[in-house]
Amino acid sequence: MRTVDIIARKRDGMALSAEEIDFLVQGFTQGTIPDYQIAAWLMAVLLRGMDRQETIDLTKAIVRSGTQLDLQEVAPFVADKHSTGGVGDKTTLVVAPLVAAAGVYVGKVSGRGLGFTGGTLDKLESIPGFQAGLTVDQFRAQLKSVGIAVVGQSAELVPADGKLYALRDVTATVDSLPLIASSIMSKKIAAGANGIVLDVKVGQGAFMRTQEEALALATLMVDIGQELGRRVRAVISDMNQPLGRAVGNALEVREALDTLHGQGPADFRQHCLTVAGQMLLLAGQAQHATEAVARLERLLDEGQALARFREWIAAQGGDLICVDEPERLPAARYVEEVAAPRSGYLAALDAREVGLTSMLLGGGRAKKGDRIDHAVGVVLHAKIGDQVVAGQPLFTIHANDEARLSGARQRLLAAYEWSDRPVKPPPLIHQIVADRG
Amino acid sequence: MRTVDIIARKRDGMALSAEEIDFLVQGFTQGTIPDYQIAAWLMAVLLRGMDRQETIDLTKAIVRSGTQLDLQEVAPFVADKHSTGGVGDKTTLVVAPLVAAAGVYVGKVSGRGLGFTGGTLDKLESIPGFQAGLTVDQFRAQLKSVGIAVVGQSAELVPADGKLYALRDVTATVDSLPLIASSIMSKKIAAGANGIVLDVKVGQGAFMRTQEEALALATLMVDIGQELGRRVRAVISDMNQPLGRAVGNALEVREALDTLHGQGPADFRQHCLTVAGQMLLLAGQAQHATEAVARLERLLDEGQALARFREWIAAQGGDLICVDEPERLPAARYVEEVAAPRSGYLAALDAREVGLTSMLLGGGRAKKGDRIDHAVGVVLHAKIGDQVVAGQPLFTIHANDEARLSGARQRLLAAYEWSDRPVKPPPLIHQIVADRG
Repeated sequence: MRTVDIIARKRDGMALSAEEIDFLVQGFTQGTIPDYQIAAWLMAVLLRGMDRQETIDLTKAIVRSGTQLDLQEVAPFVADKHSTGGVGDKTTLVVAPLVAAAGVYVGKVSGRGLGFTGGTLDKLESIPGFQAGLTVDQFRAQLKSVGIAVVGQSAELVPADGKLYALRDVTATVDSLPLIASSIMSKKIAAGANGIVLDVKVGQGAFMRTQEEALALATLMVDIGQELGRRVRAVISDMNQPLGRAVGNALEVREALDTLHGQGPADFRQHCLTVAGQMLLLAGQAQHATEAVARLERLLDEGQALARFREWIAAQGGDLICVDEPERLPAARYVEEVAAPRSGYLAALDAREVGLTSMLLGGGRAKKGDRIDHAVGVVLHAKIGDQVVAGQPLFTIHANDEARLSGARQRLLAAYEWSDRPVKPPPLIHQIVADRG
Repeated sequence: MRTVDIIARKRDGMALSAEEIDFLVQGFTQGTIPDYQIAAWLMAVLLRGMDRQETIDLTKAIVRSGTQLDLQEVAPFVADKHSTGGVGDKTTLVVAPLVAAAGVYVGKVSGRGLGFTGGTLDKLESIPGFQAGLTVDQFRAQLKSVGIAVVGQSAELVPADGKLYALRDVTATVDSLPLIASSIMSKKIAAGANGIVLDVKVGQGAFMRTQEEALALATLMVDIGQELGRRVRAVISDMNQPLGRAVGNALEVREALDTLHGQGPADFRQHCLTVAGQMLLLAGQAQHATEAVARLERLLDEGQALARFREWIAAQGGDLICVDEPERLPAARYVEEVAAPRSGYLAALDAREVGLTSMLLGGGRAKKGDRIDHAVGVVLHAKIGDQVVAGQPLFTIHANDEARLSGARQRLLAAYEWSDRPVKPPPLIHQIVADRG
């Protein structure tokens, strides 16, 4: 098998065999195939595509490049969720303890934020002492004893994915459906979950801009997961405006805590109930989504989910004082409430711009490895469809630098669109894609 | 300007600016842009194409990567020819001295053979002592004093081309019209010729398999050359069967010498006259092709071309005894004449198979840097359309190894197709593409 011949076949639009794909992936991981050949192949894949079987084979090859966790001895059924990335998406912080409170084990490998999107680990690390760097053995032990474990990516799992992503990032080959789907699903498969709920974001503040793209990605990922023996469902959710009201690490932890106390923004609570409900369905803990959601609402309102959150955070070294007294979480020096410049109905609130603003305040990373400021961010006081009167609080900026605060104010004001007539708020959930069950 | 953004623009099918193309080419040559980014860009170019202006800009950028020869002080008009590569193509050996005999300076940078095609330098080096490695100063001095100089590629001229070609070879990005055209034309432009005749081969034994492809390449190259201030013509010539009868380095030198003595195979002589005639037209030494060819025929038949050949070879250190007594050229140990297995009309004679046979006998290179045997090769006694009687000599193999001789015999016999009815020989020249003059 010659690498150049495999590249030529994909260049000419032919489907590659499982053996050919595995040859490329293992060769690249082990360093026997140089990055320039893989770069040419990735561009050919982006422009020529991959069929369903090729994408499944690519996912398998990436999984095979490293360790694959076997959680059978740890728990009868482990559930996982994955978001394709959005703004204000602190869903895992609520869903993981909520689902665990319902008796389903939640084991999850999370990532860090990049660009306009945040990362679950960055949010959790707002809590002083929280440790994301568990070993595989620690992960298994905590999952067994606490029922929840959320860790950072390790070099042992899917090393090919890390190498491929780094190369895609500098060769303009990120935006490829089969490459995105296999990257996400390989991580989920390698981490050992039995049931996976995919939260596929669509809109201005997401990587998928159209519902067609989001549906195609969701369908492909559900198909791959099912083919590899997992239960999978995908929730296609709106990301034209931020989810909830808080954007920024510690601010999002506070909003998650509010929600775990049975309060919090209605849209965020509803989103968490939907995602958690799908996880319960996969785990066989409910027959219908309405039944699942009713049970989950009680677990939220009666405090069981919050109790699970405390156990989880404590197990990973987080300081519970900050959980019990959220005002002790990192706080910014400057807090400025900005008033609505006019009266009217809020017609648009560009999620990408809000995410970028939080990043520019120091809350996110322009490039991998940048340090972040957990305290900064934005809290929105109105969402699309709300009627606002001029002078009423529109948003609050949390900053540690006056110049950045001023820049954030301007940028955010420009991210709003107004209407004189009532505006219908966008739907929260567009569609749910289920496996064959 | 970010490399990844330029790659993305080409990936999305947009035309790149001259500045963007130059940024990539100089960055790659100087090592500031890594090969994996250029590999992804090359695949995007292959699949998305380049328009006329981009191809011209790429050619300019490759020329700019190194020294550009200025031959104005050396000669009023320097002519060059270039073949896209075929089997039995020893045209330069006859055309260069023939055109020089007509009073036109011929300065040429030649390459070495690879795969089934031979290279002019390899053929010339069959003559003991011949030196292809002239410096730029030696090249200019010889061109001025002798009127002909043929040298190997130097690192000073078009270094980007060497690096790009090496990368294309291992990333399945060779077969791209704009990349092929810019590679050829950049070398011709950098070498300083005023007029260039391109011999574009088409057929089984050529890189261009169809007349449409060959015409597209010819038209593009003529266009580029003209845009860069050169006179250019392209001859689209047939390469379904080998050119002439000899294939193999020293064997081809002997056939070239026969032709310079006014003999040699009719097809090869005619091909040389056509190419040389076009060079005379570009140099303004004739008004019409018929006039040019009539003059060139006299120069061949009266020995002036041969005299020029002797001067040229002597100037580059070649042993004239071998020119005057060709039997002194490297000769193979085994010479076997193979008889026709049947009677009939010769219907096909696969040029690629004949070229590969010569390579496998040791006369060519499977990969760059392989050593070659100048003595071996094949001489064909019949061409397509000839009527052959069983038992009559069909071809002669010149080998230095009995096992290889036997393999060559089998391979060649399988390369023939026969017909019981008369077969029309293929045309020698399909088309001539001229610049605006």
